[in-house]
Amino acid sequence: MSRKVIGITSGFYYVDDDIFRDHKITGICQDYIHAITRAKALPIAIPTFNSTEEDIDEYINIIDMLILSGGEDVSPEFYSEDRLQKLGRTNYLRDTHELLLIEKAIENNIPILGICRGMQLINSYFGGTLYQDLSYVPFETIEHIQKERPEVPTQIANFDKDTFLGNYFQNEVLINTFHHQVINTLAKDFVAVAHTNDGIIEAIEHSYLPIYGIQWHPEMMAEKDNEIMQSFFNYIFNSLS
Amino acid sequence: MSRKVIGITSGFYYVDDDIFRDHKITGICQDYIHAITRAKALPIAIPTFNSTEEDIDEYINIIDMLILSGGEDVSPEFYSEDRLQKLGRTNYLRDTHELLLIEKAIENNIPILGICRGMQLINSYFGGTLYQDLSYVPFETIEHIQKERPEVPTQIANFDKDTFLGNYFQNEVLINTFHHQVINTLAKDFVAVAHTNDGIIEAIEHSYLPIYGIQWHPEMMAEKDNEIMQSFFNYIFNSLS
Amino acid sequence: MSRKVIGITSGFYYVDDDIFRDHKITGICQDYIHAITRAKALPIAIPTFNSTEEDIDEYINIIDMLILSGGEDVSPEFYSEDRLQKLGRTNYLRDTHELLLIEKAIENNIPILGICRGMQLINSYFGGTLYQDLSYVPFETIEHIQKERPEVPTQIANFDKDTFLGNYFQNEVLINTFHHQVINTLAKDFVAVAHTNDGIIEAIEHSYLPIYGIQWHPEMMAEKDNEIMQSFFNYIFNSLS
Amino acid sequence: MSRKVIGITSGFYYVDDDIFRDHKITGICQDYIHAITRAKALPIAIPTFNSTEEDIDEYINIIDMLILSGGEDVSPEFYSEDRLQKLGRTNYLRDTHELLLIEKAIENNIPILGICRGMQLINSYFGGTLYQDLSYVPFETIEHIQKERPEVPTQIANFDKDTFLGNYFQNEVLINTFHHQVINTLAKDFVAVAHTNDGIIEAIEHSYLPIYGIQWHPEMMAEKDNEIMQSFFNYIFNSLS
Amino acid sequence: MSRKVIGITSGFYYVDDDIFRDHKITGICQDYIHAITRAKALPIAIPTFNSTEEDIDEYINIIDMLILSGGEDVSPEFYSEDRLQKLGRTNYLRDTHELLLIEKAIENNIPILGICRGMQLINSYFGGTLYQDLSYVPFETIEHIQKERPEVPTQIANFDKDTFLGNYFQNEVLINTFHHQVINTLAKDFVAVAHTNDGIIEAIEHSYLPIYGIQWHPEMMAEKDNEIMQSFFNYIFNSLS
Amino acid sequence: MSRKVIGITSGFYYVDDDIFRDHKITGICQDYIHAITRAKALPIAIPTFNSTEEDIDEYINIIDMLILSGGEDVSPEFYSEDRLQKLGRTNYLRDTHELLLIEKAIENNIPILGICRGMQLINSYFGGTLYQDLSYVPFETIEHIQKERPEVPTQIANFDKDTFLGNYFQNEVLINTFHHQVINTLAKDFVAVAHTNDGIIEAIEHSYLPIYGIQWHPEMMAEKDNEIMQSFFNYIFNSLS
Amino acid sequence: MSRKVIGITSGFYYVDDDIFRDHKITGICQDYIHAITRAKALPIAIPTFNSTEEDIDEYINIIDMLILSGGEDVSPEFYSEDRLQKLGRTNYLRDTHELLLIEKAIENNIPILGICRGMQLINSYFGGTLYQDLSYVPFETIEHIQKERPEVPTQIANFDKDTFLGNYFQNEVLINTFHHQVINTLAKDFVAVAHTNDGIIEAIEHSYLPIYGIQWHPEMMAEKDNEIMQSFFNYIFNSLS
Amino acid sequence: MSRKVIGITSGFYYVDDDIFRDHKITGICQDYIHAITRAKALPIAIPTFNSTEEDIDEYINIIDMLILSGGEDVSPEFYSEDRLQKLGRTNYLRDTHELLLIEKAIENNIPILGICRGMQLINSYFGGTLYQDLSYVPFETIEHIQKERPEVPTQIANFDKDTFLGNYFQNEVLINTFHHQVINTLAKDFVAVAHTNDGIIEAIEHSYLPIYGIQWHPEMMAEKDNEIMQSFFNYIFNSLS
Repeated sequence: MSRKVIGITSGFYYVDDDIFRDHKITGICQDYIHAITRAKALPIAIPTFNSTEEDIDEYINIIDMLILSGGEDVSPEFYSEDRLQKLGRTNYLRDTHELLLIEKAIENNIPILGICRGMQLINSYFGGTLYQDLSYVPFETIEHIQKERPEVPTQIANFDKDTFLGNYFQNEVLINTFHHQVINTLAKDFVAVAHTNDGIIEAIEHSYLPIYGIQWHPEMMAEKDNEIMQSFFNYIFNSLS
Repeated sequence: MSRKVIGITSGFYYVDDDIFRDHKITGICQDYIHAITRAKALPIAIPTFNSTEEDIDEYINIIDMLILSGGEDVSPEFYSEDRLQKLGRTNYLRDTHELLLIEKAIENNIPILGICRGMQLINSYFGGTLYQDLSYVPFETIEHIQKERPEVPTQIANFDKDTFLGNYFQNEVLINTFHHQVINTLAKDFVAVAHTNDGIIEAIEHSYLPIYGIQWHPEMMAEKDNEIMQSFFNYIFNSLS
Repeated sequence: MSRKVIGITSGFYYVDDDIFRDHKITGICQDYIHAITRAKALPIAIPTFNSTEEDIDEYINIIDMLILSGGEDVSPEFYSEDRLQKLGRTNYLRDTHELLLIEKAIENNIPILGICRGMQLINSYFGGTLYQDLSYVPFETIEHIQKERPEVPTQIANFDKDTFLGNYFQNEVLINTFHHQVINTLAKDFVAVAHTNDGIIEAIEHSYLPIYGIQWHPEMMAEKDNEIMQSFFNYIFNSLS
Repeated sequence: MSRKVIGITSGFYYVDDDIFRDHKITGICQDYIHAITRAKALPIAIPTFNSTEEDIDEYINIIDMLILSGGEDVSPEFYSEDRLQKLGRTNYLRDTHELLLIEKAIENNIPILGICRGMQLINSYFGGTLYQDLSYVPFETIEHIQKERPEVPTQIANFDKDTFLGNYFQNEVLINTFHHQVINTLAKDFVAVAHTNDGIIEAIEHSYLPIYGIQWHPEMMAEKDNEIMQSFFNYIFNSLS
Repeated sequence: MSRKVIGITSGFYYVDDDIFRDHKITGICQDYIHAITRAKALPIAIPTFNSTEEDIDEYINIIDMLILSGGEDVSPEFYSEDRLQKLGRTNYLRDTHELLLIEKAIENNIPILGICRGMQLINSYFGGTLYQDLSYVPFETIEHIQKERPEVPTQIANFDKDTFLGNYFQNEVLINTFHHQVINTLAKDFVAVAHTNDGIIEAIEHSYLPIYGIQWHPEMMAEKDNEIMQSFFNYIFNSLS
Repeated sequence: MSRKVIGITSGFYYVDDDIFRDHKITGICQDYIHAITRAKALPIAIPTFNSTEEDIDEYINIIDMLILSGGEDVSPEFYSEDRLQKLGRTNYLRDTHELLLIEKAIENNIPILGICRGMQLINSYFGGTLYQDLSYVPFETIEHIQKERPEVPTQIANFDKDTFLGNYFQNEVLINTFHHQVINTLAKDFVAVAHTNDGIIEAIEHSYLPIYGIQWHPEMMAEKDNEIMQSFFNYIFNSLS
Repeated sequence: MSRKVIGITSGFYYVDDDIFRDHKITGICQDYIHAITRAKALPIAIPTFNSTEEDIDEYINIIDMLILSGGEDVSPEFYSEDRLQKLGRTNYLRDTHELLLIEKAIENNIPILGICRGMQLINSYFGGTLYQDLSYVPFETIEHIQKERPEVPTQIANFDKDTFLGNYFQNEVLINTFHHQVINTLAKDFVAVAHTNDGIIEAIEHSYLPIYGIQWHPEMMAEKDNEIMQSFFNYIFNSLS
Repeated sequence: MSRKVIGITSGFYYVDDDIFRDHKITGICQDYIHAITRAKALPIAIPTFNSTEEDIDEYINIIDMLILSGGEDVSPEFYSEDRLQKLGRTNYLRDTHELLLIEKAIENNIPILGICRGMQLINSYFGGTLYQDLSYVPFETIEHIQKERPEVPTQIANFDKDTFLGNYFQNEVLINTFHHQVINTLAKDFVAVAHTNDGIIEAIEHSYLPIYGIQWHPEMMAEKDNEIMQSFFNYIFNSLS
């Protein structure tokens, strides 16, 4: 096959209908699909379900890269904390499914990109921790759930240029922001390669494995013709062997 | 790989949120995923987008079977009729994407199962037509959008036993029903293998290709432990070479 | 025990809450409870669930009378008809549960009172049929879903005085009305003991068993101090041995 | 009778309909019914109404065990406190009805299990007090209204093994959590047999009477196939003489 | 007192609030109040309740004129018809209260003006009948529930000039329209003094008593500066002795 | 006339309808009407509008007592304070109208009863002040917007027996509570005759004029058969000369 | 000035907010603005208000072309018909304002383009009539309110090539459709230059004045990159002297 | 032309409709239009879009004055601050469009009036800053989002009489208030000409250019017949050369 196959994880949605009220939808934001197809790769939506190791092995077998999409908060059990009062909605079933995907992807040398929740899950998998809500951060922070259209950048991410992600984004890049949780302790073997002005980590990468995490939503900016964000997907996919 | 890879098509959903109002969700009912995984096959959700032949070739390359899932009415342009007043919601983008999937699946000998809208699309692809609404059917019909829980059967489908589908379902089987359109003229080379008592076509199959269509939703019945409907998926997947 | 124990059947309700969306409520209108307790009897709400004969035997063992409360349409399967287009919401699970209750109540000589849906279910159990919607009635009918407060009577029921129910209600009584289905063929061994002016059956009773059905809602009128309707419950309970 | 009869208390619900707006529903979550019937006991829903001692005597006469279900906050009048600003919705009518049930159950040696609000009511009946809202607890607490599906455990309850409940749950058990009030002073003659890590009481039992309270919702976990929680109901019912 | 006291009848409204759901509001459209006060008369809102003759005598004692305001359909019992399927919302309590007001007003020579429902009630009191819905009218009718702002006239009422009302409105006047019921047989001793082009009665008056009825809503037009409609109220009030 | 005429003030309500969206309803809670009529007095609803002195003189001329009903916050301009951030919804038009009613009632020796907002308005008229929100009270307060059904008392009001109101209520009485504002400085010539345990003023009366204010809602308790609260209205009306 | 100034008419919208409920928004669909600006012309939104001839003269003075945008039904008074029962929402104020704009535009030789309602208003201005609803058309019609995304064409308009509009659209063009009214008698001096297959008029133009009307919404198709529809605006604007 | 042409800026609105969900409305509150037309000037609504310098030049060419209307918060990027947590909804596209309008208006000597957001944008353009929310103001403030009808004044603005605006409003004027942001540092060359009692800036003007800003909404007060506010528009327009 000529196109890279990109496996992307899904969340749950509901329809407002009395008869179908307990039949949920598994889906993802169409913006991811467009970002991937515009970059000439092939998107495969991996549904979230009570998966087994065998299921996961098969998915990993098919894909060239794994994208962990945005969504609910990571269940704090996965970074060994009690749940605090300002924790948001969690999805334990999705956590276990996606952590298994991470594990198998690593075993099979499949690169991983985590977006928003995806980055937070990667950090948790490798032993890092999260602040369960921005209000728990012990220093002053700026707005991280923007009340602007999603394609409009509202912050600057300052990058360390000597990194895989920094090589692309250079010194700084304008980003959007939609999260109420942030990284607290960075996972072992990871480098924080970008921060906002208030010190929040905006991007991470593993020191020697092809595992990347970004806290903002480039696919929503790409959807509305932001070329830097669209080309980021091309850059990532071109790096795949 | 040991598991059959089942490509399943998706629809669009929206979230109620002013800021994200024009960012749609591509997704499918989780019941399909469960029906497939319980049958020990691997579900791949194929997103709906403005796809090219190359995209479709790649999907067909990966999958062992194509399931066309339920959803909007087929655009009457595809069976050469004007749109009538009682036509329901259509999704032209999805139609063109899925018709291309059908075309390429046939070219590559990939079996196809159409469910509800899926069966109607297959019939349209092969030159058949639909009644745009039950009220246009020139004979008396019974209720075809049931106001019961989706797992409860409310009709009998009478099968012709000497067919692939009839071989499984035998003479008759209890089914659910959620559609306002039905087949009018059956496509060339297709056989109507099941009907309800009022004469509505409930299942079709191609005379020599592995292409099947059923009008009801077995996956919703399987979701609530209906064994006949769950085993139907196993039966279909076991038939894959 | 000095008080009569009245078993009353329940329906399903839902709460508007994303997290609890598939956890349903089993409940009944409080008006029944008040009508029963004001008549110095003891109300026992029998939940609707996937019951077994053993469960039902136990309930019958405890109660002195069975009240079948109002609710969804009876599934036409139980009177051997196909479902027609204007059929309303059905609840097959509840039908099977309540039909078992009827069967066991009869076996154990427990009197039965059916209200609205309850009367229609009794008629179906004994072989009668229903018009699936008022519009299927072949003669002119008046309003049977009133758009008035439920305690206000909007019709006259004309009774045959020489019956158990007519003995109480005498020649005529003012009633409320909230139904879209009506009896078509009366069940064998039943007598239609009351009609509205348009000829719709408003009350039935078995020729020799203590089984009664009324089409209106006396408990809603009793709730707002209608003495005829409240005393009807006293009359019924006093008739219990 | 061979099956144990379990009386379970009810709450109030409303339907969205202008004409029926002041006709309330008395009901309970179906999960309790399923937990009880899977344990081969017989559920009797006891409606909430303005009951008299005679009504209550009759209910107690019928049942083998009383389950006090979840619901509104206990009215602080019943533990001799003024109502504070963060008190939640209360239901005084239900409080008086259920306190009478407790009183009569004790008089007649009927065992009692209180769940969530039920445990809090038991504690109030016996002279204990509640914190009217988690924010009034004078030490740091974790999340006690989980934003996860109800069947997913989000906390550990640490049990004292030398107790009736601890004998079943052993040292620790994973629980769900949906409450904003907690026990402040434990009632006389009661033992706190389980706590979460932050010190909140999760289970109590009387020193010599068969009266048990648990703060979480085992019936919601049992509903989704949690065997420890389902078997807890079997364990309790088996203990009934 | 120098100002005429105008008693005006009220309807019921509800507030969306769980706690106050069964506490209704008694009220009337503020436009009536403004029309009356601009005409230098004094508006007295007469609440709708389960009134006695003594209550009504007192109200009649205070007022110089009675205005019967718009609202629900008249209960067909008051013109000796069964309720038909397209009858709208009724308010029996309000009917009996207002019919008593009419009776006492006549006894005490208090003039009456009926607006919309008010005119229909007057016609019923005096033995006339209504078409329960426009669709029951045996000839073709135009739109009578306008989908325009209420102050915009959408019809012409053609008046008989030799009448009290025609003396004011002259040959024709532009009116608004918001009703689904119309007069069928006119009450004895009444004259139909205005019609729309399709033959619907738009105004009536008694042959010798000061009792007037109009089918449209002059107060809504007066509210938005329609001088003909505002002066109509001045004309009526000036006619009071 | 034999019955006392009670003038009661009104608020504004809206209907959900695009065409009538700017036509408001003037109305009051039906509970007041019932409390007055059960006490054999005659309720006259005084609409709120841009009234003149002449309008008010006429109303005062008709009535034997003025009841100022509950509703929005008093505009702080009337007690010479700036509006603070937690001030609630105000209704300046209603304030000016009702203050004129107070002024004219006093001039004409018409007794006044203020309920909730009514008491707060009386206090403002006579020069007293309010805390614009409970959170501005400089001492600890209990819940004053109860989350219980309105007829259920949730507090004790402790009365000074040597007063007009205390003569009726005696030492203490159980009350409901639905307000977020409370009296700060009591108006000149007024006596605070009742308090809750936290020190909030629950009733006031003028030292020598027949002007009374109570902070709770007796009419809502009377509506559900609370005899103390119903008889309070009889007591007040009997005191009228 | 180098750019053509395009005056475009507006409709009314409301915001859901109790305080601002009677403050309306005057606005138009942004798609018109984009279609105009992409064609390098300058859009001027002309608000709808109770305008005078002088206001209208000034607007006409500024603009090079008038676009009458889509919206409510034309009030039938303007084509001398009574309002029929299936007439939709009208806006009389907007009609009078826009008819004045048409009159003055013609007087000043300003070209006019009417879209949907705009075309219907032009036809009414010049003496033509409309079918007030599709169901009044005396022949069979197809779907004219499409249930597809607005940018997707669902019909073919067949053009007469020897006309100004046909010169651009050629023989046939794919169009969308969102209207329930259609032209009945064409206005004098107008030519119907396009029809759908069922015979409905889709475009008109004046025989010698630069006045054009189209029944569909080209601006919505242009918004989603339909080049034929975008270039139509360029074609029109280029024709302006 | 004899009338002054007033260009007024617009915001975005949405309609609740699945099919049109991503087609937005560009509009403004009708009150501005009425205030302008009553002052005998001509309102031109300038749509918000992704405008170029050429577009803006053309608009400036047409208008005699620019009014910047109310709306979202100014994006803090335009006064060089990070976005803080309590920032409200922003509209970056509108900011850039309107800042360009300001720039070109100044270049062409077109006077500017900023209302609410408009004043805040002017201050930002000239280098001033805003408090992103009232809670960030370091001194005590009063209510600035009134919960009263918009035409009712709830504050006093104290003016400096020796200014253009003070010349009109004199020492003090009663104003309404609907904003959660306020000026922090005043822009260079601007004078704060009015304050509320808590020290918040309510009006500004440039020292030598015809640029004015007011924080409240005079057009909403003018809409309901406030003459001071209506005449303010006449005063401003009369000052235009």
